[in-house]
Parts: sequence; structure tokens; C-alpha cells
Amino acid sequence: MIVVMKAGCSQDDIGAVVNRIKKLGLKEHISQGVERTIIGVLGQNLLDFQDTLQLLPGVEEIIPVSKPYKLASREFHPRNTVVMVNGVAIGGDEIVIMAGPCAVESEKQLLDTARQVKADGANILRGGAFKPSTSPYHFRGLGKKGLEMLAKTREETGMPVITEVMTPNDVELVANYVDILQIGARNMQNFILLDEVGKTRKPVMLKRGLSSTIQEWLLAAEYILAQGNEQLILCERGIRTFETSTRNTMDISAIPIIKKVSHLPIIADPSHATGKWYLVAPLALAAIAAGADGLMIEVHPNPALALKDGAQSLTFESFRQFMSQAIPIAQATGRKLATSGTKVKS
Amino acid sequence: MIVVMKAGCSQDDIGAVVNRIKKLGLKEHISQGVERTIIGVLGQNLLDFQDTLQLLPGVEEIIPVSKPYKLASREFHPRNTVVMVNGVAIGGDEIVIMAGPCAVESEKQLLDTARQVKADGANILRGGAFKPSTSPYHFRGLGKKGLEMLAKTREETGMPVITEVMTPNDVELVANYVDILQIGARNMQNFILLDEVGKTRKPVMLKRGLSSTIQEWLLAAEYILAQGNEQLILCERGIRTFETSTRNTMDISAIPIIKKVSHLPIIADPSHATGKWYLVAPLALAAIAAGADGLMIEVHPNPALALKDGAQSLTFESFRQFMSQAIPIAQATGRKLATSGTKVKS
Amino acid sequence: MIVVMKAGCSQDDIGAVVNRIKKLGLKEHISQGVERTIIGVLGQNLLDFQDTLQLLPGVEEIIPVSKPYKLASREFHPRNTVVMVNGVAIGGDEIVIMAGPCAVESEKQLLDTARQVKADGANILRGGAFKPSTSPYHFRGLGKKGLEMLAKTREETGMPVITEVMTPNDVELVANYVDILQIGARNMQNFILLDEVGKTRKPVMLKRGLSSTIQEWLLAAEYILAQGNEQLILCERGIRTFETSTRNTMDISAIPIIKKVSHLPIIADPSHATGKWYLVAPLALAAIAAGADGLMIEVHPNPALALKDGAQSLTFESFRQFMSQAIPIAQATGRKLATSGTKVKS
Amino acid sequence: MIVVMKAGCSQDDIGAVVNRIKKLGLKEHISQGVERTIIGVLGQNLLDFQDTLQLLPGVEEIIPVSKPYKLASREFHPRNTVVMVNGVAIGGDEIVIMAGPCAVESEKQLLDTARQVKADGANILRGGAFKPSTSPYHFRGLGKKGLEMLAKTREETGMPVITEVMTPNDVELVANYVDILQIGARNMQNFILLDEVGKTRKPVMLKRGLSSTIQEWLLAAEYILAQGNEQLILCERGIRTFETSTRNTMDISAIPIIKKVSHLPIIADPSHATGKWYLVAPLALAAIAAGADGLMIEVHPNPALALKDGAQSLTFESFRQFMSQAIPIAQATGRKLATSGTKVKS
Repeated sequence: MIVVMKAGCSQDDIGAVVNRIKKLGLKEHISQGVERTIIGVLGQNLLDFQDTLQLLPGVEEIIPVSKPYKLASREFHPRNTVVMVNGVAIGGDEIVIMAGPCAVESEKQLLDTARQVKADGANILRGGAFKPSTSPYHFRGLGKKGLEMLAKTREETGMPVITEVMTPNDVELVANYVDILQIGARNMQNFILLDEVGKTRKPVMLKRGLSSTIQEWLLAAEYILAQGNEQLILCERGIRTFETSTRNTMDISAIPIIKKVSHLPIIADPSHATGKWYLVAPLALAAIAAGADGLMIEVHPNPALALKDGAQSLTFESFRQFMSQAIPIAQATGRKLATSGTKVKS
Repeated sequence: MIVVMKAGCSQDDIGAVVNRIKKLGLKEHISQGVERTIIGVLGQNLLDFQDTLQLLPGVEEIIPVSKPYKLASREFHPRNTVVMVNGVAIGGDEIVIMAGPCAVESEKQLLDTARQVKADGANILRGGAFKPSTSPYHFRGLGKKGLEMLAKTREETGMPVITEVMTPNDVELVANYVDILQIGARNMQNFILLDEVGKTRKPVMLKRGLSSTIQEWLLAAEYILAQGNEQLILCERGIRTFETSTRNTMDISAIPIIKKVSHLPIIADPSHATGKWYLVAPLALAAIAAGADGLMIEVHPNPALALKDGAQSLTFESFRQFMSQAIPIAQATGRKLATSGTKVKS
Repeated sequence: MIVVMKAGCSQDDIGAVVNRIKKLGLKEHISQGVERTIIGVLGQNLLDFQDTLQLLPGVEEIIPVSKPYKLASREFHPRNTVVMVNGVAIGGDEIVIMAGPCAVESEKQLLDTARQVKADGANILRGGAFKPSTSPYHFRGLGKKGLEMLAKTREETGMPVITEVMTPNDVELVANYVDILQIGARNMQNFILLDEVGKTRKPVMLKRGLSSTIQEWLLAAEYILAQGNEQLILCERGIRTFETSTRNTMDISAIPIIKKVSHLPIIADPSHATGKWYLVAPLALAAIAAGADGLMIEVHPNPALALKDGAQSLTFESFRQFMSQAIPIAQATGRKLATSGTKVKS
Repeated sequence: MIVVMKAGCSQDDIGAVVNRIKKLGLKEHISQGVERTIIGVLGQNLLDFQDTLQLLPGVEEIIPVSKPYKLASREFHPRNTVVMVNGVAIGGDEIVIMAGPCAVESEKQLLDTARQVKADGANILRGGAFKPSTSPYHFRGLGKKGLEMLAKTREETGMPVITEVMTPNDVELVANYVDILQIGARNMQNFILLDEVGKTRKPVMLKRGLSSTIQEWLLAAEYILAQGNEQLILCERGIRTFETSTRNTMDISAIPIIKKVSHLPIIADPSHATGKWYLVAPLALAAIAAGADGLMIEVHPNPALALKDGAQSLTFESFRQFMSQAIPIAQATGRKLATSGTKVKS
């Protein structure tokens, strides 16, 4: 951490900062420049002392130097984390496709979709049982019934399933039914929920918050890792910007940045990022080209009748077409689409 | 709701849209322009049908017309809501000051602060027992002990207290100890928590989410109102923008907009909005001038030693100075600072 | 255009709106709903009348329906525009690579770079002679000397050249030396400059402004098109968001959106979008996968000694490596990299 | 400037950075921490060397410490700048009101407005002759005719006038007619225009760009100051955010920040910031309370017939009412509204 002193500060000001640093059990290192003095601060947990030093007379600014996350960093953990989900490896050489309806609506809707996306190469089935909704008057999911349908469909198809858990009380219930616990964008900083999924040993997928920096996202990941759960996947799903043509703006650069600074797998969700079905395929292909470890894509038997987010769902036909484009793009990046779990159970 | 058809769409496309509208039990109203046709849709719960219509051939765009919130709107409820908290009226003619430390740290810290801010005119005591923290390695509050200190300090000073509740399971506990339940910015769309505080009959203060539009904020309010809890206060505390000089950007325009479109009281929290103590007074005064019903301000006996957010806390001295400025500004707007609960118990 | 009336407005209010519409020479179309009345407005140049109608009593909101741009729209001009630059086709089947240094620094720097990027497959040479700089104390380019170096290097290598023009007075000068006039992001709404390049018959590349919506970008394009210059290329180079890991956030979704709503070619500039050389290749590949018609990439013989933007420049080695990745990605999308002008003049 | 080395970098990496620093004629200062080494860099024009150092092996990050602007800083120039405009002092104890129509439309419109706003206490007349417009199909101002009307109205009323200059070629022309040259938000980084107005000795008002940080704004100011023109006023007019209820989000915190870090006067333009007339008064009052040195407010004899921005214009009646609220707010802050130039010439 660096303490930047004001241009005209006194020697007493500098002395007082040095004294405070020593009292806190830290070490100081003074650089007296022509214009101003800067004081390096060495020691542990420096971020805890930022405010304290900030408020001393003559201090202009405190600049943190260390990254505030550790377990999520590649520095701490150089090798890629590979999350294993019933035989599907996420974060390895192969690119994993999660597909399915936004919300679980019925056994038939889910099973039909699962069979179809599996036949076309999807590895994992998605489907929301508990649905966050901006308005209290909209569909909020089938709840436990939806979980049962997910489990049953897994039974029938052999596909691992992923679904969102919205509140700490539901973690155990959801974990009993599905293979990956999803933390939604709006809950990225629901810290008690993060603690709770961190205490399980289930794989977790953590979506980036709409207004979260990459650093805040990794700090949210740190909550889960700090509880001992290392089966963690990150998911970029768009950030909030001034542009209104899309629901959110998919931050494609987050993919190579995460690969550089963290060891965690990263996938992209172009359905939620854009809110428009015709943008899903181009952005999904872009995510693969940028190095994503996987994709989460909404598919519905009849989007126009979907109870939720039909406008961003692919039809069976458009999903199949997308998959035929994804294969060569994956190959062009030197990877390939994962094949685990994609053959229909005989 | 309005369906805008594409410029070159066919009569069949228009017919199909009309049929769908009728099947949904709604009424249509066609305007055939030179360039394009637009179709008005009349009926209930129109937003539920937006996606369905969006996906029909020849449809360019769906434009919602009705506001998606109702209970929170001034149209539905023309008169100002006034929330009564132990004799303090929030949303009436008088401006209410909530003040206190970011986090409850000790009995002495809390009581000293309470006595001081009360002597200087604060009406309600704030203090965090459960603290959200971006990093898992930082102070997260004293929890239940903090609640007990809040209750004890209320006993001693007679000031009503407000504190944040972070998760549904804690709602009952927190409600037993304090007078106002605060929903923090990061939890504005924690819908299950909103349901839960909506089921209590305690006053709730709902902070605006960092990346939430005013409309989404009112929809979050709608969750609480829809559960029957009308004792609701809104709090503007800054939104996330590209500017890095301040922690967030306080959206001063939210204050007159909320007064116009909603009946709910609105207060401002310049401490969290800016993250810098020297910006708190000017922004607090600005909020009063813009029509806010109150303020929430962080005050600490010794900000440089605060366990949390010291850099944004006023000292006793600077709080007193601020209050001396607030009085004439309030008068200049034709209002005055509330005096309920500000006299020290004899 | 649609006039949404307030819920409780009077028949007189509605009558006054209708009268105003008629006086303006427009036609009205009334839909009387249960909750509120909406009035469709039909006619030409409707946007001119938005404010006028907005201010009438009883009016809640005016909703524009038509797109405000015409010449730039695919509706008006269904077939892709292909811009021809000395034998290089931009916007056709092939993907065009523009590469070169951020700023022209010397004859040798430019010529070395041109030869190298051409040998590796670049089609067009970029290089700034007039450089916008956030600070007045930084390098602002070689000016006319830089233009002469560009012309000389074109002579030597046969590569068409592109450079930025920053002010109306320089348009003629710059047009005399180079093949494509670039309008920088900061000048996207420099309307007099847009008029001026619109009056030339030189190809123009219009970068998206940092805080411009796609619609505003197309309206800026409309300025150029309205002057009769149809040789226009768009360039996505990142928008300003709250994220600080990258200089800007490349809006990858802009690429398929532009392809859908406009006929103009669109290329991407990942160097300026990210500001970091190690993000250039992944984002460039992503842009190709998303459907971009080309790329603009900064390359420097020795980025660490560059006078401008070294941190975002590729070395010769990393550019070559990138090109070897771009070829299969382009093929995987069913296109290929353009080869025009890439063979060294014998 | 500080060079942060990577955690695992070698002594050779550190040695190479030190060598480069010395070669550049700068001094280094090494702090070897437990986790990582940081190297302070001392000398002149450090920002020029940021990229160079960034690219050396083992370097994690470069952190600038000095502010990149100098002439605009309060450190360099501790006393408030007061800009004198025909007897009106901007930046002194009194608060200055600029008012008038968005665009000059006719002699009568301008004169009527000038007389009225002067009678109600405005000090300076605003009115656009050259109007930036997002669309090429909208009104772009009366040009030179508009300037003549401004000069004539000044003659009649004695009010100083301010108008926007959009392009370097017009600077001399506009300067011949008006008292303050306004640089619009879209031109904040039109560097050649900044140079040009910097070369005049006319007062300049520099609006903040829609997506400009406060630091970039002060760097734009630096361009003007560096040319020797110190008669400079800043104007906050809203930044672009995700919120769509207002045209832009007025960054009220910019006012106290500018007062702290710079000596330049700062005024606020709530008309452009919000785009809605009913938000103008509350935000204008807020700006005064936050410490603004003045306001720019749009007033039109008949907003519903305005050629531009009618929706954000006050009527004569609402301007008068606003002024009656502004007087006590100004007094409550210990200042008062300026009276120079507000008495009608006899």
C-alpha cells in the first residue's frame, strides 16, 4: 500500500503517518520526491488500514498495491481449476455447452428440450426452478416441483443439471436435486448465500453482477473459496451500461482477463447478456473465440409461448444451427466441444 | 402496450398478430401509417405477453406503455405516505436526520455517538450490526451483539434505531431489536428478503441498488408493498458510473423524480454515495434543497479508528457544523428539521 | 410517434392534443384503453414535434416509433455496402485487416512496420499523423510530415493508408495524402467535421463515440451519408463503463446489431477498446467470430519505445501469431481474410 | 509514479527496470516488501514513460501518483479564479444566473426572454446560434444571424451574452459578437477547438463531456489554460449513465470536488442534465446548496413552440418562481445571487 502525501505537507505530517504505520505493526518506506513524498507501507492485511491512514493530516491519497483476493488468483494457484460434474470437465481442454429453458415449465417441456439439446451436443441441462423477477407480478418459477422435474429429467437423459439457488435456506434443498448450484447476477454480493454454497461440496457457478467489476467478482468468488469449496465456475452475463439496444453489454474482455488473473473456469451466457435471441449465436461464437471454457444458452421448444424470457431463447432449430457453427470455431481455437454426456441414453 | 410492425411486413403478419392478441383475451387497435403499422394492445397484465408478441413474424418492437408498478405509484396513491417511527414522522413536512456510525463497534462508541448526534438534532440512530463487505477478509459486523447494543442505546437515549438486515432468516431477529429494517443496496433485488420484510409490519428503508433504474427500484418497493407492508421509505445512495473520484455517483435527480411518480418518502445517504467525508455536507445540503424527506449520515467518534468506512464518516465536530448549515437550507425550502426525539432524555 | 396520455386526463386534454396534431399537418389515431388513452401520430418528420406535444396538459409521455436515421438503415438500403479502397473491398465476403503503429514516428518506423504487417497479411496500413491526446502535455503527432511519410510508404509498399482527421480545416489536406479518412471516437459528434468529410468522395471510417449509443452512432453516420458520401465504414472501439480493468469495454454485440439494422461495413479496433496488448488477439478473434468485416490493430516495431499507446501495441512477432490464429477463425465463419494488397510489391 | 513488480519476478527484472529508469534520466527508489517489490520513480513528465515501463518483463502495473493537470489545480493556484464578464464576477462570493432560450429563434423571442429573465434577476443571457444536433435532420441554429441577434439584444438590455462555438474556424467570428465562448459537452475533447479558444482572451465556459471523468475535464481545461487564457469557467451538465428517466445524470458531487481540487469557477446546467423542465428547479437549488458559483438555465416564452429542447425549458412564470426559491437558498449558504447587470437599462 502506498501513502501519497500532499505537495505542501509538513515534516510533522510525515512523521505522524510514519508513527501510525509503526503503531499498526507495519513497516514504512519513505521516498522523498521533488514534488511530493510517498510512503510505502509493508505488512499483512494492509487494506484494513486504508481508511485510518487516509484520514491523517497531509495525506492526499492511499493507493492499494496488492490484489485484495488471493484464493481466486492465478498467482496463488497457477494451474487451471477443472470442475468435474458427473464426468463433464469444465475448465479443461474441451468447451462445455449448458443449454435448456430459462424456466422449468413442465415435465414435457423440460424433457423434450433436454433430449433435443443433448442430441445436438449439449453437455449439461439448465432450467430455472426459482426465478428472480424484477416485478412481483411475474412468474417466479415452479420451486420444488421444478427441482423434481430437473432430477427426473436427469434420470431420463443422463445429463447433469444446473439451476439457480436464490436464498441460503434453499441451498440444502437445491443441492439435493441438482449437480451445479447457480448464483445469479443479482445475488453476486449476497454474502450469506455465498458463505452457504461455499460450505457445500457441490460445484457452484457464480454469475457476474450487473454492476460488478472483475475485481469484485473475484472477491465474491473468494467468499466461496474461503469456505473450502473449490468447485467454482465463473459466468460472464453482461454488465449494465448506457446502451439500450441490448438488455446488458456482454463484456467479452472479461474472458481473457479472467483466464489471465484467475485459475477458475469461465463461461459466457449470451442469452441473458443480450436479451435477444438473434444475438445469441454471434456472441456465443465470439466467446469461444475469446477463450471461454463453455457457454450457457437458453433453448425452448416454443419461445413465443415461454413463461419467461422467450425473446432470448433459441428454438431447437436455431440451437442446432448454432452448434454446427460452434464446432469449427472451437477447432479453430485449438479446442473442441466436449462430448461427455451428449449421447442419448439407450 | 404497442406492437410496432416492420416497415415491409405483410397483411398476413398483421393478421397473425391480431389473432394472437385476441387469443390472449386482449383487445387490439390498429393504426396504419404511411411507413408502418402500429397495433395498440389493451387489457390486463400486458407485460406478461411482451415476449410472446415480440417473436411473431413482422414484429419490429414491443413498447410497454403502462408503468409496471402500481402500489408504489402516485397515480394509484396520490397522497404522500408518512411513515411513523416512535413519534418521528418520515415523509411529512419535516426533514428527518438519521445519524450514527457505519458499524456498531462497542457500547461506548454507540452510546457516545447517539448522545452527541441527538444533542445536535439527529432524530434516528443508525448503526450496522450485520455488515456487507466486498471482501471476505474484512469486518462483517458484531451480529446479534450489535443488535443488543442498539436496543440498549435506544433505551438510554430514547432514539429510534435503524439497522440493516441481510438475509431472510434474520428478519425476525432484527425486527425484535430495532425500529426500521434497512435493505442494503446490494440486496435491493434479493426478492425473497423483500418478501420477508414485506410480511412484517415494521417500517422498512429500501436503498437503491448500485445499478438499478428508478423503475426497478420502485418494482422492488412493489414487492414489499404487495406483501401488505406500507411503512416503506426509499433511500438514494448513489449509482455506479464511470467516474472514479467518488465511490458512486449520487443521483440527485432521483429525489424530485420519486416525489413526482411515487407517494413514498425518499431520503439520501451521501456518506455511502461518495465515500468521502468532505463531500458529505455539500451533498446532504443539496439533497435537502432538491426535496429529500431526510438524510442518513455516518458519524463516528474517531473516524481514523473506525472499523468500517472511516473515510466517509463525519466527526462529532463536522456533524455539528453540518447541522448548523442544514437548518437554514431546510427553512429556505419552506420546511424544517424534525425535532422529535432530539432532546436528551432527562 | 405515440402520445401516451395520463391516466386521469380529461377529454379536453385529449381534444387539445388532437387539435395540435392537426395544426401541425399530421394525422392522429386514438386508442381509448381502460386505464389510459394513447394517440398515434402519423406524418413526416415526427421527431421535430416531440417536445411540442410533450408539453401539452395531460400528456404523460411521447414514444418515438420510427428510427431517426434513414440512409444508414438496412430498411432503406437492404444490400450490404461494399467500400472499395484501391482494390481492397471492405464489407464484402472477405475480412480486411488494417494494421500499423498508433502514431507515425519516423519513415523507418512506418516502412518497417508496413512491410512486416503486409508480409503477414494486412491489407491496409494505419498510422496517426494528427493524434488526439487527453493531456496537452503529450505527443500530438507529426502532422503534415506524418502525412508525407504515409504517402511515401504507400508508394513503397502499395498498401492503402488510413489516418485520422481531427478538424474540418484539415480534411482537404489529409484527403490529398491518404485513402481513408478516419473520424476518431472523440469526434463522432463533431458535426461540422462530419459534414466536411461527407462532402468529399473519399472513404471514411467513423469510430463509435465512447458514450454513444448505437442509434447515435448511426445518426452520426447519417450526417456523412446525407452529404452524399456513401463510402462509409463503421468501427467499434469500446464504450465507457464502470469497469477499470480495460480502458473501455468493447461492445461485441454492436457487431451483429449493426449488421442487422444497417448496410454499412463494421470493423473492430480491439487495441483502443482494451488498451492492453495481451487482450488484442482474443478480442480480435471474437470480433471475427461475431461477424466483423475487418479489424484495426496497432503494431509497433518496439512497443516499449513507442511515442504513443505502446501498452496496447502488438510486436511484429505477436501480430504474426495473431494472424495465424485469425485465418482458421475466419474460415470457421465461412469467410476468409482478404488477400488484396498483401503481397510485397516486387 | 510507482512501478509495481509481479510477485515472483526476478532480481534481473528489477535490475532492468532500474536501468531503464536511469536511462530515461529519472531516479528510482526501491521498496522490497514481503510479497512484492515496488519501485518509486522520481522526475519530470513521468506520465510520458508509463507505457515504456509497463512493458518491461516482471512489471505488474504502473500507478501514476501526480495529477496530470497543473494549471487547473488548486495546488498550483490556491486562490479562486474570478472571471469578470462586463461587470459580472463569476467565481466570487455571488452566484451568477445565466438564462435564456436554448436556441436563438428570432429577435423578438430573444429580446422578450432577455428582458424577462433580467427583470427576474438573471445576470447573463444565453442563446445558441450554432446548435449541435444528434440528427442531421433537426434544427441546427440560425448561425451568424443568431449571433447578430445576440449582439443586438445585448445592446438593448445591457446583458452580457454567452453562446456556443462549435468549430475552430468560427472562434473569431463568435468572439466578435459575444462575451463568453461556450464549449459544448460533445466538444470537450475537440482539442484543436480548445487550443483555438485558448488563444483568444475571451472568457470561455467549458462544459463537461458526457462520458468524461473529472480528471479528463480538468485536462481539457488545461489545454485552454496552457494557451494562456485564464478566463475559464467549468460547467457540469450531466454524465451518461444507465438511468433513462433523465437525459443524463447530473453529477452533483462534481461541484464540491472541483471547488476542492481546482481554482476555477463551476456552474451547473440542470436543463441539459435532465432534459425535463420540472426537474430544473430542484436540481438548480441543489447545485447552489452544493456550492456552485452559478447556473445556466433555459427559459423560453413558449416552450411548446420552441425549435429546440422545449421540454427542458422553463416558462417565464416558472423561471420567476424558481428565482424566488433560489434567493433564500443562496442566503442559507452564506452567499447571495449576483445583482450586476440585472437592472433594466433606463
